[in-house]
Amino acid sequence: MENIQRIADTFSKLQRKICNQLEEADGKGKFSHNKWEKSPGSGMTSVLGKGAVIEKGAVNFSFVKGDFSERMERILGEKGQKYAATGISSILHPENPWLPIIHMNVRYFALDSGVSWFGGGIDLTPHIIVPREAAGFHQSLKETCNAFNSHYYPDFKKWADDYFYLTHREETRGVGGIFFDRQRPGTAQEMEKLFGFCVALAKKYPEIYIGFMNKNDQKKYTEREKQWQNLRRGRYVEFNLIQDRGTKFGLESGGSTESILVSLPANASWEYNYQPEPGGFEEKTLALLKKDIDWINYEEK
Amino acid sequence: MENIQRIADTFSKLQRKICNQLEEADGKGKFSHNKWEKSPGSGMTSVLGKGAVIEKGAVNFSFVKGDFSERMERILGEKGQKYAATGISSILHPENPWLPIIHMNVRYFALDSGVSWFGGGIDLTPHIIVPREAAGFHQSLKETCNAFNSHYYPDFKKWADDYFYLTHREETRGVGGIFFDRQRPGTAQEMEKLFGFCVALAKKYPEIYIGFMNKNDQKKYTEREKQWQNLRRGRYVEFNLIQDRGTKFGLESGGSTESILVSLPANASWEYNYQPEPGGFEEKTLALLKKDIDWINYEEK
Repeated sequence: MENIQRIADTFSKLQRKICNQLEEADGKGKFSHNKWEKSPGSGMTSVLGKGAVIEKGAVNFSFVKGDFSERMERILGEKGQKYAATGISSILHPENPWLPIIHMNVRYFALDSGVSWFGGGIDLTPHIIVPREAAGFHQSLKETCNAFNSHYYPDFKKWADDYFYLTHREETRGVGGIFFDRQRPGTAQEMEKLFGFCVALAKKYPEIYIGFMNKNDQKKYTEREKQWQNLRRGRYVEFNLIQDRGTKFGLESGGSTESILVSLPANASWEYNYQPEPGGFEEKTLALLKKDIDWINYEEK
Repeated sequence: MENIQRIADTFSKLQRKICNQLEEADGKGKFSHNKWEKSPGSGMTSVLGKGAVIEKGAVNFSFVKGDFSERMERILGEKGQKYAATGISSILHPENPWLPIIHMNVRYFALDSGVSWFGGGIDLTPHIIVPREAAGFHQSLKETCNAFNSHYYPDFKKWADDYFYLTHREETRGVGGIFFDRQRPGTAQEMEKLFGFCVALAKKYPEIYIGFMNKNDQKKYTEREKQWQNLRRGRYVEFNLIQDRGTKFGLESGGSTESILVSLPANASWEYNYQPEPGGFEEKTLALLKKDIDWINYEEK
């Protein structure tokens, strides 16, 4: 666990940096920075509400240390007395339905037994899928991955497809991205490499989203597109509350409810047995909520 | 399991009757009746959208029969080869924030081992709590209970307080009501009594809600009350997706997703770290989201 203070310090600085970059790009919204302390840890929940572009955005940093409970032993399949964990997680919900929802998380978990691992990822949930934008997003993740390990992108892309899948809806949350967990550094060198990868992702994240903002934030939208956005946000709520392991674990382990549920959109809708209009943008988006699409080489029919 | 066909037939007729009564009271909205069949059962999901009073309302009937899986054995702690279950569940989300959300469920579950039980309840979630209305609601439930067993109301009221509790929010879903499960008829006489109680509840349900409609549906409301309604609906979504056992079990066991999630409101909102205005109706409502309030004898301070 000797590395965790250094990692937490870096994550904490990165959190602030991400907030500053997003604030500058939004031009109107300001992050409020809310320190919290709740046994067994503390953190900073930074929230931007009602920006010019970002309707609701959050960047969370947390650093917790505590006793490794029997429950955690069972869930994680590891033995230990003490644990420590630190991470950044962020989610952005834009006002404009032509901008996607984005989510990023990097985290490090360490046990006093000497076992430790990194996890994280970035995934994109466009309300309306534009395949060439999904391709650009995946290309950007692939390049970030390839600077570290050429297996990362294909492996972690598949992992994201499987993780961000709403079983009860038989659809992916969006166009995926990358997701990884339990990446154990075997050597000091691997430790630095994995840490470097997480830092690279956390730096890439605002850059990717600011790219979307610069491209689409002036795009006009219709009432129909806005209603569709709210239905898609409903699915996002379903994923986070029913399936997301981080949310579940956080709420069950007595985490800060407001910090965990800040990931939910400002508004969401549900409509019984919604049927898209044949040939409409809604139907096209639904048809693309599938696993295993090779977005980088995707060709529109 | 010899009783289940008769019970299912009665529940099915009651479902239709509830729909007719609500439709008449609403005056504008019409139920669409959607038959569904999905292994291991079938049912009818009746949904009313955009009524004059009811923004989104559903009355579901289901009757399923199937193999009793190992998973079900584990969850229910019972042994058997085959099971059958039938029930009605209903939820109403009104347009006007001065009308409450209401939920009713009655169900019967039987195993080929001979074991069977009834469960159900009615609970109320006012967006804005008016104590004398909560008292009237509880009084009405108490009278319905007392016609069968004087222990029902106190026991089942407490059960509802415990069941409809959002652990991560440390608040009740609303003003409670009654909830019961696993009421096993030991004799044919007890069977008829419990069945009669469930039928009485299902009949009382539209009567109770139509009472609220007649009283409050013309009440003017403000934008602030409407926003608050959406925040409270957000909590309702949290309860249904995170905690409700029926929703969880239904989704996990491959039930009809649209029929299960029809309980969600048309719209819901979330606001990070919402703080009510001191002395406002929101603060007063939050202060009353507590277990063990004796609503019938509640005196406003």
